[in-house]
Order: sequence, then structure tokens, then C-alpha cells
Amino acid sequence: MQSPIPDYLAETLGDIASDTSGALADYIPELAAADPERLGAAFAMVDGAVYGVGDVDTEFTIQSISKPFAYALALADRGFDAVLAKVGVEPSGEAFNELSLEGGTGRPLNPMINAGAITAHSLVGPEGIDATARLERVVDGLSAFAGRRLMFDDSVCASELEHAHRNLAIAHMLRSYNVITEDPATVVEGYTRQCSLLVTTLDLAVMAATLANHGVNPVSGERVVPEPVVRQVLSVMFSCGMYDAAGDWATQVGIPAKSGVAGGLIGALPGQIGIATFSPRLDVHGNSVRGVGLFGRFSSDMGLHVMEVPAASRAVVRSNHVVGEEPDAVRVIQLQGGIRFAGAERVIREVTDTAPAEHHVKLDLTMAYSIDDVARRMLLEIVRRLTLDGHEVSLIDPEGILAVPISSA
Amino acid sequence: MQSPIPDYLAETLGDIASDTSGALADYIPELAAADPERLGAAFAMVDGAVYGVGDVDTEFTIQSISKPFAYALALADRGFDAVLAKVGVEPSGEAFNELSLEGGTGRPLNPMINAGAITAHSLVGPEGIDATARLERVVDGLSAFAGRRLMFDDSVCASELEHAHRNLAIAHMLRSYNVITEDPATVVEGYTRQCSLLVTTLDLAVMAATLANHGVNPVSGERVVPEPVVRQVLSVMFSCGMYDAAGDWATQVGIPAKSGVAGGLIGALPGQIGIATFSPRLDVHGNSVRGVGLFGRFSSDMGLHVMEVPAASRAVVRSNHVVGEEPDAVRVIQLQGGIRFAGAERVIREVTDTAPAEHHVKLDLTMAYSIDDVARRMLLEIVRRLTLDGHEVSLIDPEGILAVPISSA
Amino acid sequence: MQSPIPDYLAETLGDIASDTSGALADYIPELAAADPERLGAAFAMVDGAVYGVGDVDTEFTIQSISKPFAYALALADRGFDAVLAKVGVEPSGEAFNELSLEGGTGRPLNPMINAGAITAHSLVGPEGIDATARLERVVDGLSAFAGRRLMFDDSVCASELEHAHRNLAIAHMLRSYNVITEDPATVVEGYTRQCSLLVTTLDLAVMAATLANHGVNPVSGERVVPEPVVRQVLSVMFSCGMYDAAGDWATQVGIPAKSGVAGGLIGALPGQIGIATFSPRLDVHGNSVRGVGLFGRFSSDMGLHVMEVPAASRAVVRSNHVVGEEPDAVRVIQLQGGIRFAGAERVIREVTDTAPAEHHVKLDLTMAYSIDDVARRMLLEIVRRLTLDGHEVSLIDPEGILAVPISSA
Amino acid sequence: MQSPIPDYLAETLGDIASDTSGALADYIPELAAADPERLGAAFAMVDGAVYGVGDVDTEFTIQSISKPFAYALALADRGFDAVLAKVGVEPSGEAFNELSLEGGTGRPLNPMINAGAITAHSLVGPEGIDATARLERVVDGLSAFAGRRLMFDDSVCASELEHAHRNLAIAHMLRSYNVITEDPATVVEGYTRQCSLLVTTLDLAVMAATLANHGVNPVSGERVVPEPVVRQVLSVMFSCGMYDAAGDWATQVGIPAKSGVAGGLIGALPGQIGIATFSPRLDVHGNSVRGVGLFGRFSSDMGLHVMEVPAASRAVVRSNHVVGEEPDAVRVIQLQGGIRFAGAERVIREVTDTAPAEHHVKLDLTMAYSIDDVARRMLLEIVRRLTLDGHEVSLIDPEGILAVPISSA
Repeated sequence: MQSPIPDYLAETLGDIASDTSGALADYIPELAAADPERLGAAFAMVDGAVYGVGDVDTEFTIQSISKPFAYALALADRGFDAVLAKVGVEPSGEAFNELSLEGGTGRPLNPMINAGAITAHSLVGPEGIDATARLERVVDGLSAFAGRRLMFDDSVCASELEHAHRNLAIAHMLRSYNVITEDPATVVEGYTRQCSLLVTTLDLAVMAATLANHGVNPVSGERVVPEPVVRQVLSVMFSCGMYDAAGDWATQVGIPAKSGVAGGLIGALPGQIGIATFSPRLDVHGNSVRGVGLFGRFSSDMGLHVMEVPAASRAVVRSNHVVGEEPDAVRVIQLQGGIRFAGAERVIREVTDTAPAEHHVKLDLTMAYSIDDVARRMLLEIVRRLTLDGHEVSLIDPEGILAVPISSA
Repeated sequence: MQSPIPDYLAETLGDIASDTSGALADYIPELAAADPERLGAAFAMVDGAVYGVGDVDTEFTIQSISKPFAYALALADRGFDAVLAKVGVEPSGEAFNELSLEGGTGRPLNPMINAGAITAHSLVGPEGIDATARLERVVDGLSAFAGRRLMFDDSVCASELEHAHRNLAIAHMLRSYNVITEDPATVVEGYTRQCSLLVTTLDLAVMAATLANHGVNPVSGERVVPEPVVRQVLSVMFSCGMYDAAGDWATQVGIPAKSGVAGGLIGALPGQIGIATFSPRLDVHGNSVRGVGLFGRFSSDMGLHVMEVPAASRAVVRSNHVVGEEPDAVRVIQLQGGIRFAGAERVIREVTDTAPAEHHVKLDLTMAYSIDDVARRMLLEIVRRLTLDGHEVSLIDPEGILAVPISSA
Repeated sequence: MQSPIPDYLAETLGDIASDTSGALADYIPELAAADPERLGAAFAMVDGAVYGVGDVDTEFTIQSISKPFAYALALADRGFDAVLAKVGVEPSGEAFNELSLEGGTGRPLNPMINAGAITAHSLVGPEGIDATARLERVVDGLSAFAGRRLMFDDSVCASELEHAHRNLAIAHMLRSYNVITEDPATVVEGYTRQCSLLVTTLDLAVMAATLANHGVNPVSGERVVPEPVVRQVLSVMFSCGMYDAAGDWATQVGIPAKSGVAGGLIGALPGQIGIATFSPRLDVHGNSVRGVGLFGRFSSDMGLHVMEVPAASRAVVRSNHVVGEEPDAVRVIQLQGGIRFAGAERVIREVTDTAPAEHHVKLDLTMAYSIDDVARRMLLEIVRRLTLDGHEVSLIDPEGILAVPISSA
Repeated sequence: MQSPIPDYLAETLGDIASDTSGALADYIPELAAADPERLGAAFAMVDGAVYGVGDVDTEFTIQSISKPFAYALALADRGFDAVLAKVGVEPSGEAFNELSLEGGTGRPLNPMINAGAITAHSLVGPEGIDATARLERVVDGLSAFAGRRLMFDDSVCASELEHAHRNLAIAHMLRSYNVITEDPATVVEGYTRQCSLLVTTLDLAVMAATLANHGVNPVSGERVVPEPVVRQVLSVMFSCGMYDAAGDWATQVGIPAKSGVAGGLIGALPGQIGIATFSPRLDVHGNSVRGVGLFGRFSSDMGLHVMEVPAASRAVVRSNHVVGEEPDAVRVIQLQGGIRFAGAERVIREVTDTAPAEHHVKLDLTMAYSIDDVARRMLLEIVRRLTLDGHEVSLIDPEGILAVPISSA
């Protein structure tokens, strides 16, 4: 049997290929010379499976898609307080290259607009790092997200630097507010290099899947950034990733996303999937026309909306029965699935509703495959309380899911 | 054994009670006369369990918390196109009573600011409905969300109407753009009545849980609005529910939420829980001080952040083994848990990787408890393809989860 | 001989008549039904001479041209402090019907936008006046500016009231800030009536000339408002009268001006002339297309730019000579023209430079025709100082210009 | 006799000296080290007389007061079209260092804000001029306005350049819109040098008087810029010179003005006077506290408000009488004063009202001292028409004022 997923991707790409609207970015010759017909899409699952159809091996510059990843590195390297002091998390409702600085402080509204991204770039690496070492850290970090060594496109970079007036304006303005504290031209050069890293659609899908997989690259297995950083990055992508069309995207597509001017577009649905598309023609917001179309299809075809989560707690209690007869009767409560707060609450209710008469109570986790931190604490609290009530309690946990957090940030 | 959940709630309320900062809303005497010390919090689970601690039976006016529910009714009654033509979904970054109309069209930026909420109110019920019938529909609808008949606070309503200059200004402005098409004063009166509905903290928790439970009231079992409406409402609450602090809330708390000037605050985490708090002292944004504090605690203590979803797909394939010997050997692939796109993808991979030599293939869903639409289609596609390859395929589905969608909007 | 001025006006109107661009205001049927070809222009000199060519007797509604006059009445009736507390004087750079309220206070930025004009209307008459009496005061006041009793166009007024949503919005917003303190609907009705007063182009020219003539109607001789009020009104017209094109108008035309949506346009050049034009087709700013064209011609043809004032002081000292022989020699300093600060300064210099040796000094004002307050004080100071120095000083002032201020506000 | 004008200045300075509110500019050490008690004021009359009291010989940097003069040079060197294409004339209502660029084009709103002033600097001199030559042209031009060679303060300039982040940001932004077309850093350096020119209060008074005197330095007699340029500059100063307090200044003081951060303040009242004050403590708008106070006093004490112009036309016709008897009777119309449009109109009226029966008509200009272009044309038209009517007309013009324009731009 052949997997139907590549077939699905191929069919969807075929449908979208007829849309030749939009225009290539043309502010530098290198982008204007791209082949407008290129089209690719890739899925990377959180367990490392990767599907790609179309031009998924074609390299192009990452551009603004580097923003969430560099922001993640800054958060990881400097901590939340230091980064939040310099870059906000509020949607700007404005185009990517608007200043959008907070009145008074000059703090960029969020890290997805250029002002915030330039600032975030300046915060990668430990305090006091020099520009060369910082850029190395950026390349290392983004390469870790992608799972392979990324290289620069020097000619795109050189050309962008020649047309960097607006970013230089932004950087000087940030410098005037002490939001950045180094030479503005140096920071803009570093940021421009960051944007000129070459990626393929497959790379981007893996990078997105690393975000979807709480910071661990699902292919290489490397933890790239801690889990709280990922939560922050995904939240910001959700409300600010698509610029002035953020609200439409959040409601209709519902996947934290980021686009780049070279035609790339990524989305990361936590716990499920990383998606990337590539098609160079852009709409008026600067997002890939076909990329936006593909994501709309993916979201609606596959139920990939962040607000569309099934009621997972229901079936956590698989069974509740008594084995044996008094005085050796054992109350067995059998759990299943992944257990989070809502599931653990259900277990608590089962126990309190049952008010087990049996001396021996057994919580059987054999069929459960994951448990998060709060649920673990809640189960242990059940054990403690039952014990206090005079019960003898045993936990059946053959896979040891109680022992080790599934994710340790 | 006693449930630890009320204990947790009581402890958290005890911690927050010492925070007496903030001030009562004082623009009408009725709100200024509230008891500032009132404090309550409630959880409503998506299977109908409800926990409440503190003043959870005290009635207060729903105020702006009515906004997402009336918006949901408008979407259900008029359809997405009609409502989106009149109210946008973009964050405004502004206070609740700012005009925040889109340039040119006069369309309010989103339904969580007053301009958008007044417009949404005017869109409840079928086109052409009169003001009285529309208000009845609002009361019926919000009562269905709460699971009990809600009543007006006439004196708060009367007092609000006396101070409704700003809302009247907004309504006349909307009328000038033909965003609302009826008499502005009548619409404002209806909206003000909507805001004066009396609720308890327990009511609000159930209302939130109805959103978390894809539109079905988990206590009464009534479907109040279709599932796509809920997805839309939750998305908008996530990016616009907390006004000018939306970004901070989205990153730090990560629960779609809405606050009211009488001190109420709700949050709905899809698939998991509805939360409500009540404490009348407000911060500068108009949000309940202690309510914001409690939600911060709940989110971090219980892992209730919308971007914090565990990788649920991993263990969907419970086992893959052969039963019996050739020529009667049967390849059995045993599934478990809730199956969505990422889970179904995993199943596909299992099948294609295995490339079963056995003539007979059995997909065993006995231990699976839910499957969504896309996953159902994907499993059936597997069956189809295996059959085309010459296999005999059987589906073991004792609970019939393949037969009926878990949610049918 | 026939005056060339009507010929000049006729020729200029002939030139402009070919411009049929622009469109009638169409938000009410009454304005949309105007004859678009109507064209008139009138000059009213500050000594009461009036020239008119074209449709200068056609009546039309005054609309926004009533704004500076009602503002003048409010200043006269309530005093500067009371009015400035409610309406600012800053340009808004926005269209006439934008809110343009000052952050925090809700004070309209200036009285030429609707928000400010509605507020100014509410401030006409003594505090506590009722709406009927206030409207009477407005009609009386504007009639005094025009020099004849003005009447309402009831059908335009009724139609405007039906479409007054935006002004009602503005008035409710002003009420919410306590900028207006009465029922918003009543104030809007009064303001709308004010705007529906019928005027001819000749009326408007006289109204403008009353402003140019420091508040005295040059035809009727009636003082309508005090001089400081006029200075304030003209300053505000100069910077705010033409909405978002204020700067272009100020630099290119340089005449304090105000336009109305029915096609009227006035300009007042202090000390020189009141001008009015009438042509109903409007440009995108809502100003009469041909009116703007005519004013451009008038300003450049006739040197009517407020920043183009000749150096008038030069020739104030007509002669400085000695008559007779010592010991009866008399130093005669002969003055001429209109004497203001700069002229009086020149006289002082003449006296100090001359350091007259003669005992007798005669200041001859026979050929001077006006002197303002500061110049009068300066001349009297010269007399005092010369006297202190031992001179005998005589003032020759056959027309008594030293005795009575030319304008007493 | 001693002139009372220095006495008046000294008394007014004495009154204002007690106001020690405000604070020194402190963004560079050089400005923060200024002596805060320095106080000076000077008047320069349009015929070259200069009065100064207090610290009028102290040198300080011209700073933003250079803006109107450099703008004048740009208009003179490149023409109106070229300059208006790059810098607007609309008030911004914003602080001096706000971007205030026109949406879409990036054109600075006006030349009094930094963005517009940097652009205006870049437009001084012929197209293609290099930075060194342009700066020389700026120094030459400003020196011509002042009537003496101005020098740089190199240490202030160097210090400003170290803190020029915001101006560099503005310049890069302007470069990104092609509003400036040269290297942003070079333009900012030139502009900063321009701002570091050293002037005294006396210099500034003469510079202002050059504007008041239609572009001719009244001390040196040199024409520095053409008259239309001055009209443009004064108009822009009137509406944009005092930043966000422009409207208050326009109404209350009514003198086109400009302030500098080193404590200077100038005002130019066309046809009358140039005024300068110096006191380094600044208010929140960045204007000299005592300077603003002094200008308020000067305006109200001396009637120096641009909208306060006396009705000069009245007495243009000095007499109208017949000399001799028929058939040799001569109708003599004797004119006096300065004659502009309104005066010439009065003459026309005199002639047409008189409808002279006498064959011979004599227009006697002996007592008139000036006539502008339009009035000249109007008088000649009278002559032409009377001649056509069969009259013999003679013009008595002993000073030849009909022959040569008083100002030839």
C-alpha cells in the first residue's frame, strides 16, 4: 500500500497551481529573478516522519521566517525578562516594515515586525557577545531547528544590504531609545545575514515541527530550545505572525504561522505537525498567495485549527471494577490515553464518586501512554489521600510514565 | 476520599485574597456599591462536572462577558458572511470603548470592543426581527449557554442607560456607516439590557465550558451553537478578549478569555475546561485584578495554555503483530486513544512501513475512544488501498466510533 | 467711466466657468438637486462698497460657513476662557467630519471641524439659555454679520436631520466627555438649523467683510463682535478653515477662509476685503472646485496674501525741517499715513537722531489718517520725554486721530 | 531725548526674569552647561534700526531656528515645485522629532519638523552639488540673512553627531522613500553642522527682519531670497513653527515664529519687525519659557498680531476737488499713503462716483509713498478708461512710484 498523504499533497498542489495571481518581491534583483512557478509543500510530523511534494528541495532565502526562530534563541539565551523588556508581544495591526514602537519606551510591539526582529536578533547569545559570534549562534541555532547546516546566500544578502535604508532607519530609531545598544549598521548587517540563510521547504517543515514538538527536533532528536520558549513563540506567531491579516488568519486557518518574502510559509500546530509551503508570488500583505491558499485547505481538510481540540478527557477512565472478593477484593481503576489536567480531574471524580469500600485500590496505568506534570501531581495526591483514608494503594505503571516527565523543559 | 480540586481552588483563592488593589467600576452607582471583597472561582469540566469555591452563587451583571456569547448567537443566526461583513476579527490594541472602526467601511475591528459588540447584538436573530424578539433571543441563547433562565438587573440597566452617551455615540457612528441599520438608541437599549443579565460564577463557568465543549452545554447536554461558531468565537477571544493587554494574556495565560466590568472573568480551553472567577476590583484595563491573578495561577499550575498540547499521536498504534500462521495469519494493528490527523497519519505509516505480507489485515479500534472526521476518512482510505492491493481488511470497531462523528456541527 | 472691478470679476468668472470638474454634495436630495452651473463672486470692501458678478443673489444654505460666525458669537457671549476650555485651536489635519477630539479631555481640536462647531453652537448665548433662545441668538448674530434678516431652509434642515447620524455620534461622544452638557439630539438640531440658514453670495461677502473690518459690519455700521474675537476667528480660519488642505491654502492663497458643502466659500483679509464665491461642485476635500480656483486667482492677481504686507513704516516721517530762525525756530516733524508700532518707532528714531536743538518741537499729524493704541502711547511718550528735556512740544492733530481709538473693541 | 524703546525692552525683560521655570536641554553636555540665567531680546525694524537689551551679544547655537532659513534657501535654489515635491506644508500637530511623514510618499509634513528640515537641507544649492559646497551655501545664505559671517561651534556639533541616532533614523527612512537621495549619514552631518552655527540675539533679530522685509536684509541692504519665498516661509512658520502648540501661538501671539533648543526664539511680522529673544530654559514643547512669555507681551503690548491689520484703504483718497473754471477746470484727485488693491479700489470708486464732467482729470500721487503691482495696474486702467471716455488724464508722480515696483522678487 502507498501512503495516501503524498497523494493528498499532490492533489492539493495541483488544485492550487492554477492560481498565478500575486507578484514576485522585486525590491532586489535576486528576488525578482526567482522562478514564479516553483511550488512545494511539506509535512513534518512530531515523531519525525516527513512528507514532501513538489519543489521541496529548492533552496531559497528564509527571510522573515527566521524571525520566530531567532526570537526563540533570544528567549533561550537571555531569559524572558530581558527579552520582554526590549520587545513586546502585542499585535500591531500594521505592515511588517512599519515602525510600530510603543509610545514612550520605543519598545517594538512584537518580534514578528522588522523592528522587533532586529531587536530580537541583537539579543541572541549571551550579553556582551560580539557580532560575529552572535551571527554564528544564529546560524547554529537555526541549523539545529532544521537539522542540517544552513548556508548563506551571499548575493541576496549583499543586495539586501544595499537596500536596507528602512531597516537602518528602524535600527537607528531603536538605538535612540536604547532598545538596541550596539552600532545600528552592525545589527542590521547581522539581521540581514540571518534573513539570507538558504532553506528548502523540507527544512522549514522540520523547523516548524520542532516548534510543534515542544522544542525538540523530531528528526534529529535534539532539544533546540526549552518548552516555555516554544509556548511563547507559538503564541506570538498566532497573534502577530501574519501582520495586518493576523485576525483573519487566526480565525480561518488557526495555525501559528510565519511567512517570508522569498515565498516560504510555515505553520506549527502544537503536538501535531509542522507544515511548510513554497511559492514565490506574494499578495498585498507580502504573504505567498498559493501558500495562504494551501494552508486554508490543510486547516479545513485536516481539522488543524488550534481552537479545535477534541474532548480528550472523556475516556481516560477505561474501567472501574472490583477484582476478587472480600476481604481480598481489589478496586481496579484502569486509565488510558494521554492524561492531562482534565483527565486527572476525571480520575479524581471516579475515585470520589466510587468511594471505594475495598481496602485495596489499584490505579492501572498500563494503557495510558503519557501524563503531564499537573496530572502526575494529581494522581499522586489521590494516592496520598486514599492512603490517609486507610486504603492500601498500588500504582500499576509498567512503562514508567509517572517517573519521568514526557517533556522536561 | 475528598476531591483535592476544591482544596486547590480554596488554597489559590486564599492566596489571592490578600490582593486588595484595583478599584470598583464607579461610572454608575450600582456598580460602585458592590461588595469589593467578594471572591469566587469555578471550574466546569467538558463532561459536566462543576467545582466552585467562594462566592460562586452571588449574582452580578454579566456586562462585557456577554459579548462572545451574543457574537456566537449572531454567527449561528445569520451565518459567517453576514456577520463578517459587519464586524472584523482584528485586534485593536485599544481600550474597550474606543471607536476602533476600520477606515472607509466603518466596520468595527472586532466583536469584543463595544462598537463590535453593539453591532453583533444587532445581528442576533433572523434578519428583520424586531428589537423585543431579538432581546428574547439573546436571553434565550445566553440562558442556554448557562443552562438556566437568566434574569435582568433592571436597576443596573436603567442606570447604565442614563450614562450610555458613549455607546450612543458609537451606535450613531455605526448607523452613519450603515453598519447597523436600525435606530441607534433602540440597539443601545437592547445591548445594555444584554449586559445587565444577572449571572453567578457557576453560571459563567458552565457558559465557558459550553464553548470549551464545542458548543454543547456539558451540564444540560443542549447544543447551543454549531462547532465552527465556537472555533471562531474562541479565536477572537484569544486575540481580542483582553483589550489592550491581549498579547500579554495570550502569551502568559494562553486561555481564550473575556472579562466584565462587574468583576467577572471567564476562560475556555477547548476540549478541557471552562473557568470563571468573580472579584469586583478592576485594574487599569478594566479587568478584575484578582481574576487576572487567578487565571495566571490556574494556567501555570495546571498547564492550561492553548499552545501547550502534548504530542498525542505517538501512541495511537498500540501494537502491530501477526496472529496465527500462514495461510491463516492475520496482521493485527491495534489502535488506541483519540485519533485525529496526526494519529491517522501514524497509522498510515505503520501500514506502509509494515507492507503486510499477510492476506488478512485487521484494524482493531477497540481501545480507541474517538476519531475525528479527517482521521475517519484516512482510515477508510487505508482500507480502500489495502483492498485494492488484494488484502482482505476487517475493521474491529465495537463502540462504533467510525460510524458517527463525535461532533456534528 | 465704468469701474474695472466688475469687469475683472466677470472676466475671472468667465475663465473659471469652463471647469466643470467636481461633484454636487449628494448625501441629501436637496443638495443633490442644486443647479451645478451656478456661479457667482462678490467683493465687499471694508468701507462698505460691494461688487458682485454672476449668481450673487441666489440663495443657498450657509452650511459650514456658519462655523466661524457661530464661534465668534460664542467667544463674544461666553468669553475666551469658557470657550477655549471646550474647543481647542489646533489644526487637525483631518476631514471635517472626523472626531478629532483631544486625548483625555475629549475637547474638539478646533471649531472648524464638526465636533468643534457643534460645541461652539452650544456655547452661543449666556450660560443656561434654552435651545430656542440660543438658536434665535445665532440667527440674530449671523443676520447682523450679513446686515439683513436671514431665514431657514426648512426642507434642507429636515433632510439633514434625517441624515445626522454622524453628528449625533459626535454629539453623544462630546456629551460623554461633558464637553457639551445638554441633550445631544437638541444640540445637533440647533446646529443643523444654524447650517440651514439661507444666504446669497453678496451676504457672505458682507459677512466676511465684517471680519475683515474688525467686527464692524461695513455696510450697516453695526459692531457685531469685539475686535479680539475677530482676531481669534481669523487666526483659526487661517490654520483650520480648509480642513486637511489647510497648509496648501495658507501658503498658496494666504487668506483666512471657510467653505460650505452647498458651494459657498468666503475669505476675509483683515483691513482690506471680504470675498465670497458660490459654485456647488465640490472637490474631494468638500470645497467648491471653482471657488478654490477663484480664490487662487484673486490672491495672486491682487496680492491678497496675509503674509504679503508692504513695509508701511518707511514713509511715516514725511519731513523733518526747521521753520523760522532762532530764537523762534521750530523743529517740525511731519507725519503721514497710518501709524502703528513700526511707524511710531520710526518717529522716535527721527527725534532721537535729530536731537533737536530748537526749543520748540512740533509733531504734525495733519497728513496722518490713523494711529493705533501702541503708536498713540509711543507718540505721547515722545512728547513727555521731550518736555522733560526742556522742550516745548506741540501736537498738530486737526482730525483728532490721537483722541479716539480708530477701533475700540 | 532717549528712545523709550530700550526702556520698554528693559522693563519687559525685568518682569520676565523672575520666571525661572523650565529646564536646560540636556541631551548633550554642551547644552546642559549653558548659563540658564542668560536673557536677551532684540528688535530689528524693517528699515534697519536695531534695538537690543540684555545678553544680546552672547553667542549660542542656532539649532532649529536655522530651519526656516535653510528652507528659504532651498526654495530659492531649487524652485517651489522641486521643494514641494519633497516637503509638505501641513501642520503635524506633533513634536519636532516625530517622523510625521505623509502616508505612501514618505514626504515630511512640513519643513519645521526634523524630517522636513533634513530634507530641506539636502535641497539647498543647485542639483548635484556636493555636501561640502552645499554646507558652504548654507553658511553663506544664513550669514547673508544675519549680515555677518557666521561660524560653527565645533564641539556642540561633534557632540550632537554622537547623539544623532534619531536624525539618522529619520534620514534613513527618508532615503528609503527617495525623499533624500544621498547618503543619509552625510546629510545628517550637514544638517547638524547647519544647526551648530553660532548666532547672537542681535543676529537673529536681523535674520527675522530680513523675512519681515520681504527678503532684503534691512541692515546690509542685500536681497537674500526672493519675495515669494519669504511669503511661503512665513506662512509655514505661522502654522508649523511652534510644533504641537502651533494653534495656541497662532491665535494668542499671531507672529510667524521659530524656536531653537539652545534657547533662541525669533518672530517676523511682515512689513514691520523682526524680533529675537534668548533664554535657555525650555518648556515641555522645547520652546524657551521666557521667550514665549516675552513674545506674548510684545504681541499684546504692541499690537503685533498678523490678523490685526488696520483698514488702510480708507484715506487713500486725500481730496477730490476741481481747480479752475470751465472750460479749463481740472478735476484733481489727490492720493496719499501706501496704495494696494483695497486703496486702488477706493480710487476707482471715487472716480466712478464722481463721474467727472471736467475734460481734464489729474491723479495726484505726490503724497503717496508706495504702490504695489496690482494697484499700479488698476490706476493705469483708470487712466485708460477715462481716456477712452474722452478725458485728458494726467498723472502727477514726482517720486516716480508708478515707475518701479517697490519690491521686485
